[in-house]
Amino acid sequence: MMPNAARRSERSRTAILDAVLALLRESGYADLTIEAIASRAGVGKQTIYRWWPGRGAVVLDALVEQAAAAGPQALPDTGDLEADLRVVVRAIVAELADPRLSATTRALTIETLSSEAFADQMRDRMLRPQLDTVKDRLRSAREAGDLRPEVDLDQAVELLIGPMYHRWMMRTGPLTEEYADGIVDLAMAALRPGTAGKPRPGTA
Amino acid sequence: MMPNAARRSERSRTAILDAVLALLRESGYADLTIEAIASRAGVGKQTIYRWWPGRGAVVLDALVEQAAAAGPQALPDTGDLEADLRVVVRAIVAELADPRLSATTRALTIETLSSEAFADQMRDRMLRPQLDTVKDRLRSAREAGDLRPEVDLDQAVELLIGPMYHRWMMRTGPLTEEYADGIVDLAMAALRPGTAGKPRPGTA
Repeated sequence: MMPNAARRSERSRTAILDAVLALLRESGYADLTIEAIASRAGVGKQTIYRWWPGRGAVVLDALVEQAAAAGPQALPDTGDLEADLRVVVRAIVAELADPRLSATTRALTIETLSSEAFADQMRDRMLRPQLDTVKDRLRSAREAGDLRPEVDLDQAVELLIGPMYHRWMMRTGPLTEEYADGIVDLAMAALRPGTAGKPRPGTA
Repeated sequence: MMPNAARRSERSRTAILDAVLALLRESGYADLTIEAIASRAGVGKQTIYRWWPGRGAVVLDALVEQAAAAGPQALPDTGDLEADLRVVVRAIVAELADPRLSATTRALTIETLSSEAFADQMRDRMLRPQLDTVKDRLRSAREAGDLRPEVDLDQAVELLIGPMYHRWMMRTGPLTEEYADGIVDLAMAALRPGTAGKPRPGTA
């Protein structure tokens, strides 16, 4: 009996995660209730609550499995760092500018701020792999001599990503293509070799 | 009768906001219930709910009045932009690194992400005045010739502020003095005159 039960469990689990992704595509996070997921997946609500503490956790699992199914991600590498970053930053800004697309990120950010356990999951399973695609591109730029060798790659990634999330979260300004290009311009000025300026006192 | 009633209202309002600040200082946001505020202020809970929709709103009012009472804020201006920014960025990173001090910011950020009306209040009454102190210091640096004249000042402020909030929110790395200095180093490389690098294609 166990193999059948395990198979049934796995079928339910897959149906639930597929339902989450379909509902996110069709109507967005705001309408994504546990009830709607259960109904779409053909399971009872209690099946969902048995496996996940709430909506954030099941959405995170669905998005992580979707990313895994899509295979390893990488940034474009045309050899032109600035052009490659511009493509990526424009795409992220466009997604943040769309209230429906960014509703999921908004909800996952609230969960991240509300629960340390969720924050660890979010960082390790979803955010870190995304940040690492940028870090890998910066590392290859460094190897090509297009990046100041002394730059901390994690801080360089955050220099690109942090400002746009701050503007999006705090609603402090427009999220336009011109704005995206401005981020890349500033980051390139910070990262490009020969732009280190004068050394800080005490570090020479 | 109205003047007396109005005076009583104002006395209650002040007592409530003072209670919020005292409780935040003494025990932090986690223990700050509407019940605790009412008890400390010597008013009924319904008095608080009559004027504020919830904890976030009354905390925002208390912090905004505290800032107003402290008078106009400004960044240090010693003439050395990098040294002045280092003082400020180190102070913000130290506050974010302290779970008790940053609990209020965490709560206000959750409210900001959860309610557009609260986000507008938070931005206009609390965040914008803080960002403007950094912007004013950058403007004076630009007048002194210490900043590339073509840099957008709002984007420059976000280049300093965005990365540390992202790291704090997402728990992606340590919040140390060395990290704070790294932010300033990167920002200075981006902002300093003569570091613009090659022009972007199509913008010449």
